[in-house]
Amino acid sequence: MKESEEKRGVSRRDLLGGTAKTAVVAGMGAVAVSGATPVFAQDGHQKFELSPGELDEYYGFWSSGQTGELRILGVPSMRELMRIPVFNRCSATGWGQTNESLKILTEGLLPETKAYLAAQGKVTYDNGDLHHPHMSFTDGTYDGRYIFANDKANTRVARINCTTMKCDKILEIPNAHDIHGMRPQKYPRTGYIFANGEHEAPLVNDGKILDDPSKYSCIFTAIDGDEMKVAWQVLVSGNLDNCDADYQGKYAFSTSYNSEMGMNLAEMTENELDHCVVFNIKAIEDAVKAGNYEEHNGVPVLDGRKPANSQFTRYIPIPNSPHGCNAAPDKKHIVINGKLSPTVSIIDVTKVDALFSDNADPRSAVVGEPQLGLGPLHTAFDGKGNAFTTLFLDSQVVKWNLDKAIRAYAGEDVDPIISKVDVHYQPGHNSTSMGETAEADGKWLISMNKFSKDRFLNVGPLKPENEQLIDISGDEMKVVHDGPTFAEPHDSIIVHRSKVNPAIVWNRDDPMFADAIKQAEADGVDLESAEDIIRDGNKVRVYMHSVAPTFSLEKFTVKQGDEVTVYVTNIDDIDDLTHGFCLSNYGVAMEVAPQATASVTFVAERPGVHWYYCQWFCHALHMEMRGRMFVEPRNV
Amino acid sequence: MKESEEKRGVSRRDLLGGTAKTAVVAGMGAVAVSGATPVFAQDGHQKFELSPGELDEYYGFWSSGQTGELRILGVPSMRELMRIPVFNRCSATGWGQTNESLKILTEGLLPETKAYLAAQGKVTYDNGDLHHPHMSFTDGTYDGRYIFANDKANTRVARINCTTMKCDKILEIPNAHDIHGMRPQKYPRTGYIFANGEHEAPLVNDGKILDDPSKYSCIFTAIDGDEMKVAWQVLVSGNLDNCDADYQGKYAFSTSYNSEMGMNLAEMTENELDHCVVFNIKAIEDAVKAGNYEEHNGVPVLDGRKPANSQFTRYIPIPNSPHGCNAAPDKKHIVINGKLSPTVSIIDVTKVDALFSDNADPRSAVVGEPQLGLGPLHTAFDGKGNAFTTLFLDSQVVKWNLDKAIRAYAGEDVDPIISKVDVHYQPGHNSTSMGETAEADGKWLISMNKFSKDRFLNVGPLKPENEQLIDISGDEMKVVHDGPTFAEPHDSIIVHRSKVNPAIVWNRDDPMFADAIKQAEADGVDLESAEDIIRDGNKVRVYMHSVAPTFSLEKFTVKQGDEVTVYVTNIDDIDDLTHGFCLSNYGVAMEVAPQATASVTFVAERPGVHWYYCQWFCHALHMEMRGRMFVEPRNV
Repeated sequence: MKESEEKRGVSRRDLLGGTAKTAVVAGMGAVAVSGATPVFAQDGHQKFELSPGELDEYYGFWSSGQTGELRILGVPSMRELMRIPVFNRCSATGWGQTNESLKILTEGLLPETKAYLAAQGKVTYDNGDLHHPHMSFTDGTYDGRYIFANDKANTRVARINCTTMKCDKILEIPNAHDIHGMRPQKYPRTGYIFANGEHEAPLVNDGKILDDPSKYSCIFTAIDGDEMKVAWQVLVSGNLDNCDADYQGKYAFSTSYNSEMGMNLAEMTENELDHCVVFNIKAIEDAVKAGNYEEHNGVPVLDGRKPANSQFTRYIPIPNSPHGCNAAPDKKHIVINGKLSPTVSIIDVTKVDALFSDNADPRSAVVGEPQLGLGPLHTAFDGKGNAFTTLFLDSQVVKWNLDKAIRAYAGEDVDPIISKVDVHYQPGHNSTSMGETAEADGKWLISMNKFSKDRFLNVGPLKPENEQLIDISGDEMKVVHDGPTFAEPHDSIIVHRSKVNPAIVWNRDDPMFADAIKQAEADGVDLESAEDIIRDGNKVRVYMHSVAPTFSLEKFTVKQGDEVTVYVTNIDDIDDLTHGFCLSNYGVAMEVAPQATASVTFVAERPGVHWYYCQWFCHALHMEMRGRMFVEPRNV
Repeated sequence: MKESEEKRGVSRRDLLGGTAKTAVVAGMGAVAVSGATPVFAQDGHQKFELSPGELDEYYGFWSSGQTGELRILGVPSMRELMRIPVFNRCSATGWGQTNESLKILTEGLLPETKAYLAAQGKVTYDNGDLHHPHMSFTDGTYDGRYIFANDKANTRVARINCTTMKCDKILEIPNAHDIHGMRPQKYPRTGYIFANGEHEAPLVNDGKILDDPSKYSCIFTAIDGDEMKVAWQVLVSGNLDNCDADYQGKYAFSTSYNSEMGMNLAEMTENELDHCVVFNIKAIEDAVKAGNYEEHNGVPVLDGRKPANSQFTRYIPIPNSPHGCNAAPDKKHIVINGKLSPTVSIIDVTKVDALFSDNADPRSAVVGEPQLGLGPLHTAFDGKGNAFTTLFLDSQVVKWNLDKAIRAYAGEDVDPIISKVDVHYQPGHNSTSMGETAEADGKWLISMNKFSKDRFLNVGPLKPENEQLIDISGDEMKVVHDGPTFAEPHDSIIVHRSKVNPAIVWNRDDPMFADAIKQAEADGVDLESAEDIIRDGNKVRVYMHSVAPTFSLEKFTVKQGDEVTVYVTNIDDIDDLTHGFCLSNYGVAMEVAPQATASVTFVAERPGVHWYYCQWFCHALHMEMRGRMFVEPRNV
């Protein structure tokens, strides 16, 4: 019996059963589950398996969802090349522990957040929910300067410097709650980062208003990406979901579910139509310049809520609970994905002017609305006029043609759907190579699937998710690779390697360790030749440099209770020669990459002999790269 | 000029230059850098690229070094299937934040450590340096019960339950410092975990002895792997490095560098010979039973230092700074890897009895000492009489024959070296499929290389490391895949999938959430149908259960300053249907896998409306799976 079950395998219908039940809840009737067998890789697809030493053609920048880090993958090999800690803590690099990282993690926090964290005995959040990594643009395409990413968990936006591939700024967004969708301005440059506050709450959330949803609102934020400061905010109706910017620099678009402003599932999914909010950037900027706003927490806040029908916003009705929002590389269309509706809605950005100037019917901007399948969540593009939409409930990707969809909407008898392919299972975001820029090249599609179920060896109750690589260079989509990921693939962008030019070693002028340089100067210490111990009351600053396989100090002495700061400068300038400083039984560890300075502060409360060692393998005599900290006991 | 340089590429010699300079420091003269071009994958190797949906043949359990987690990879596809947080903090799962994880992270800490952490405002270390993952054995092979792993940073040993694939115990090792090498007993079963204290310090390290190395010692520890309690410890001479156990259950072996007990690089590398320490398990157990020991921190400590030449230990002289220690699947030989010597030393375990019983010359147990190349660090086996040793300085793996090496040592004119292959670059540990068991199957070899340099797209000053997959099924080794890893591959084991049998969902009887069940019972709450709020002074316990896409509580109210514990029980019992609980702007997030209960405690210091949401994608209406916490302000 058991054997025969194994032989038969688990049916696709059974597998999908647990996670494809939505339609009933959403009142859509029975779910049409595809019965087709998965399409496996066949000969004739593009080469994606690289020989040892071959380089990938693309950098993939990957969100990690609730893991809180940014990931760099090589595409098409789908190998993880680097983890960049952002909102999380990192045992390896000391992110969340070094003074350099703590400055970035704390300097952008609101005063009320600092007070809350202090009451928990903390200076920073230790978690995040990083959803949407996007690169800065110049003139409609990636410019290789920065990656921006949002934190839904604690309402922040971070910036990663693509020269060092480290996070260099984190900004908490005031007034808003739980930043979800986030995209950079595409034209003329980034410019603004548009950030959706997903959840509604009182604008002044001090506890005076609690269970009174009529007084809640959601907030759309524009951040100056160069300065990492909030430029302005707009109050809106409905929960903001995903967003994108046009290629003209005139409008931003946000999908919005729960236009009902319901507080539970039944209330949230009641309406047949929700909307896409369109933000008129120039009108908003003009109002801010003219001082026509309320200020909250130092930020100009404008009212763009629906009943106001203000000059700042328009609400385009979209079938039930739209989710993904994707500007096409034709620079003209925005695709809004229906989620609970089997349709996507195509907005023509050239028709948006009239919504503001002539108060035209908002639906007049919709030029296509093809029915694609169940649970359309996100759409990516090939730059050849085709679009690829994930179907969450069907566990499929559908390839369709924009022009045909528009012609069909105009009444022509034409089928926009080109083909469908099964994915495994329940896809969310997807991305194509260069697909969110004007340089979409139509080579690769990633389907980021929320469930892997049986696709990998069983690793216990918690399973990986599954990002699948799909060859889209030909007429048929071909799934060529299953890639397991730890929580969670969520979203990604695929950037041609010609756009990215990271440094090999740190530049000694990098702002990351400017404070350390300043402190060393004040102490009369040259960081690059340092072997100094400076006592300043009960504060002790220990300066050392590292050259494989030695630290310049083989020992130093402090007193129990001293506040000790250790500065390590790695003067090795060889590609890949990272050192570390790990102080054992003190819970202290940090990365010191070539030509960097890193520092960490702790209270020397533990008396005795404690070894510090290099924990980033550097040399055949790596294990001998160590020294002793002596802590004289308080009562001696 | 630039173009021609690019065309020529970077020479292998230049690339190795920075990290292959050791020999000069170690007094070994010029480095012999291989000039051969890398061996790339060719046809005829074993299949390792899996089609979408195909399962791997092996579970790879991977350490992550200073990242502090355990990783599961699929082998041969080399895809990361899961990250298991152990010594690190994890934003995704809430490891280090949930009450369940905090219990595991704190209950095994020493009182002095708890006091030290309290002085830093902490209850647990946030970092670790996880080096050596090894599975429990029964009768000389893997039994699928547990993975054990050490923390060099903070002197701990952890256990991962292979049913749930979660860490279930962490033990801080008293008296010892900075656990490095660690291996389970192979026979009759695990049984003991042998753990090397690498660094020397005063036995009572309270600050009375500081810069007096003559009073320092190193400690070897045996842990009861079933109870996760220290069984006994032995004081030894020299820094303990790696270790292994025999297949007879009689001896454990530890390599030891710095027999000089030097405090800096010059002193540490002065001697021509260091040693391998052999521990006589029965003699130690007899002494413990007889009460012939000193007790420190509740642990029996025996003196096995070199001058004592006690019945507990023997010191086998080994050329300069031996590192890797590897028991061969022939159940007879232990290979000790020379590091600064170009040799490995083969110990015949059947000759060890005489060292103890007859005081035989310790070198009489050495039956082979082939010269293999520069920087031999670790050796793995194919079960066919051959061994594979990483050569750090040569950046190569050498395949050699054990029997021939033994015959050559006995005087026969035979060359034990079969072949060499270049790896990229500077390999440390290696592992073969089932290679550390009696069931070594000779299919795959992993070379875990410390530097990747030019092997992947440049990702900035911090580079990935590189684990290479090598086909060893034929006569020639073939490098078939480069696998980048975040800090750091360090060590791995490759376990046939037939040995591992994880659960699909949690068992409600699992000890992980026994405390939550107990508390719920005391509160009269049924966790699986809970929607209860229990107030107990200023302590509030909020109980809810989750079924996609809803939490059973859509809201709850507490007062500012309350100590709130939220318990979430995921009653979905479908494969892969994990939920999460993320409380926004409170820094609170945790995983709740199917049929699990998880809980988190925080102080509700932030007044107002705060949303909690499911952050593990669970359903098409996942974004609607949320609720509100109302925090009434203190002064209302």
